[in-house]
Amino acid sequence: MTVNILFAATESRWPQYEAPLRDALKAAGVTDYRLATEMPPEEVDYIVYAPNSPLRDFRPYVNTKAVLNIWAGVEGIVGNETLTQPLCRMVDAGLKEGMVEWVTGQVLRHHLGLDRVLARQAGDWCPEVPPLARDRRVGVLGLGELGAACAEALARLNFRVAGWSRRPKDLPGIVTQHGDDGLRAVLAETEILVLLLPLTAETENVLDADALARLPGGAVIVNPGRGALIDDAALLAALESGHLGHATLDVFREEPLPADHPFWRHPKVTVSPHVASETRPSTAAEVLAENIRRGEAGEPFLHEVDRGAGY
Amino acid sequence: MTVNILFAATESRWPQYEAPLRDALKAAGVTDYRLATEMPPEEVDYIVYAPNSPLRDFRPYVNTKAVLNIWAGVEGIVGNETLTQPLCRMVDAGLKEGMVEWVTGQVLRHHLGLDRVLARQAGDWCPEVPPLARDRRVGVLGLGELGAACAEALARLNFRVAGWSRRPKDLPGIVTQHGDDGLRAVLAETEILVLLLPLTAETENVLDADALARLPGGAVIVNPGRGALIDDAALLAALESGHLGHATLDVFREEPLPADHPFWRHPKVTVSPHVASETRPSTAAEVLAENIRRGEAGEPFLHEVDRGAGY
Repeated sequence: MTVNILFAATESRWPQYEAPLRDALKAAGVTDYRLATEMPPEEVDYIVYAPNSPLRDFRPYVNTKAVLNIWAGVEGIVGNETLTQPLCRMVDAGLKEGMVEWVTGQVLRHHLGLDRVLARQAGDWCPEVPPLARDRRVGVLGLGELGAACAEALARLNFRVAGWSRRPKDLPGIVTQHGDDGLRAVLAETEILVLLLPLTAETENVLDADALARLPGGAVIVNPGRGALIDDAALLAALESGHLGHATLDVFREEPLPADHPFWRHPKVTVSPHVASETRPSTAAEVLAENIRRGEAGEPFLHEVDRGAGY
Repeated sequence: MTVNILFAATESRWPQYEAPLRDALKAAGVTDYRLATEMPPEEVDYIVYAPNSPLRDFRPYVNTKAVLNIWAGVEGIVGNETLTQPLCRMVDAGLKEGMVEWVTGQVLRHHLGLDRVLARQAGDWCPEVPPLARDRRVGVLGLGELGAACAEALARLNFRVAGWSRRPKDLPGIVTQHGDDGLRAVLAETEILVLLLPLTAETENVLDADALARLPGGAVIVNPGRGALIDDAALLAALESGHLGHATLDVFREEPLPADHPFWRHPKVTVSPHVASETRPSTAAEVLAENIRRGEAGEPFLHEVDRGAGY
C-alpha cells in the first residue's frame, strides 16, 4: 500500500525538506510512498506539519494516522479543536549538535583572537600566540541538555570549564556551582562566558550591571540562550567603559533585531541572526521517517504530544 | 661526568628557554650539566637546535651524541651533509594542543560561516543555518602526531573526517587513505581541507593545479603545515576562477609574508602570521631534557628523524 504523506509547512520549507525526507524514508525502509505539498485530504496518511502552515482545519483528513510537527514547540497547534489525530512534536538531535558546534566555534574564535587576524592589514605580521585552552577559563551558565553538552565539548578541548545552574548538578570533568554565591564565584573567574539558561522570572536579567561588574576585565560574553537573560543597557555600558572585551549575541529581546538597534553598529558586539539552535532538515527528517515507519508497523509514535499536558 | 649542552637556536630563544630547560633537566634527574650558548665544539654532548640558527657546520662537533631540534619541522636541516649525528625533532604536547585548537577553530569558522556574520551590515538579519558537522566533509592530509590529533578532535565534534598519508595508517573513527589514488579520493570528497604534511621532496607542491581542481567547488583550504605544500600561483588561480571558496594560510614560502604579496589583499585569503604551531618552551623543555636523560642512560631517543624519509 502506498503511504501518502502531505507536506504542510510553509512554502520555503519544501525545498529544504524534500530531499532529506526522501533519503530518510528510504533509510527507514519506507519505499512505496507519495510525498507532495497537495493531496486530496481523505487520501492523506501522514501530515508533516509546522504550526505556521495555512492548514488549520484538520476535519477533512479523516484517514490521517498522525500529524508530525517539524517544530519542537506545539503551543501554536495543540489547542486546535479540529485536530483529533495523534500529534507528535520534533525532538531533533541536530539542534543539540548544532548548538555545540556554534558555541565551540564562538569560544575558539574569541580564544584564538580570530577577529584580529581577519582585520589585519597587508604586511601586518605580528605573531601573537594565544594561551593554550588549558589556561583559558570558560564559564557556562545553564547546565540543561544544551549547556551540559557545550560544557563537555569545551572541556574535551582542554578548556578550564566552570558550570553554573540554579540547582546543584554534577557533570564529569566540570567544576559546577549553584545558587547566588556560586554564580558570583563563576563570574569572577570567567574569561569567556556562555549563556544557556532557560528564560524564567528568575533568570531574566541575570546578567545585570552587578553581575557584569564581577567578570574580570576584558571578559567576553557569548549568548545563544535567550535575549532577556542580559540587561541590554548594562551590557552596552560595560562594553563602553572598556570593562568587557566583546559580546557575541545570537538572541535578542526583539527579533529580527531592529536595524536601528545600537548592537548592530557597536564595534564590540557581534550580531548573529538566531542561528545557534535550529532544527536541521537532515536530522529532523530521520525523526519524521522513523515515526512514519512506526505508524505503518503499528508501533507507538515517538514524542507524541500529551494533549492534557499540552506538550 | 658533566653533560655539556650547547643552546644553538636564535638569540631571542635563549631567555625563553633557559629557565624552563634548567627546571626540566632537574626534574629529569640531570643535575651535573653545563648549559650555554657558546662552548668549544669538541666538548659538546648535545645541541639544542633550531634550523634558523647560524650553526650550519656540524663537523667540529665530533663528540656530540644528538642534535635536539626545538622545531617540529626539520626540512631546513635534514639535508645538511655535515650533520651525521642523530637528529631528533620536537614533538611538544603544547604544540600539539595549540595546533588542535587552531585547526578546530579555523575549521569551525569556515563550517559556521563566521566571516559572513562578522561582515554583516546593520539590519542585515538573514538566518543561514549551516549544515551539521556530521554532514560536513573535512580532509586532513598528513596523519603524523599533529594531523592525527587534529583529525581525532574534528571527528569528536562529529565532522566526517577523511585522512590521508603517504604510507597506510589506521586511526579509530577516521577513514584513512594513502598513495596517489587515495589522495585523489580524499580531495574529491573534501569541503574543508587541512594540510599537516611534512615538507619533503614528495610533498612539495602536493596541492598543485591538478590537485586543487579535484576539490569540489567552494572548497576551503586551511594550511598550518608548510607553505611549500601549495603551488601559490595555482592556488591564486583557483581562488580567482571561483573554484575554491577560501584559503586560510598560516605558513608561507617566505616568512614574514612580504607586504606586497597578493595573499595579503586577496578577499578569499586569510593570512595568519605562523601562530598555529608554536612550541611552548615549558612543554618543549621537558622533551629536550627527557632525550638528554635517555642519551646519558643509553636508551633510544624520542622522535629521532628517519634520514631516508626526511622526517
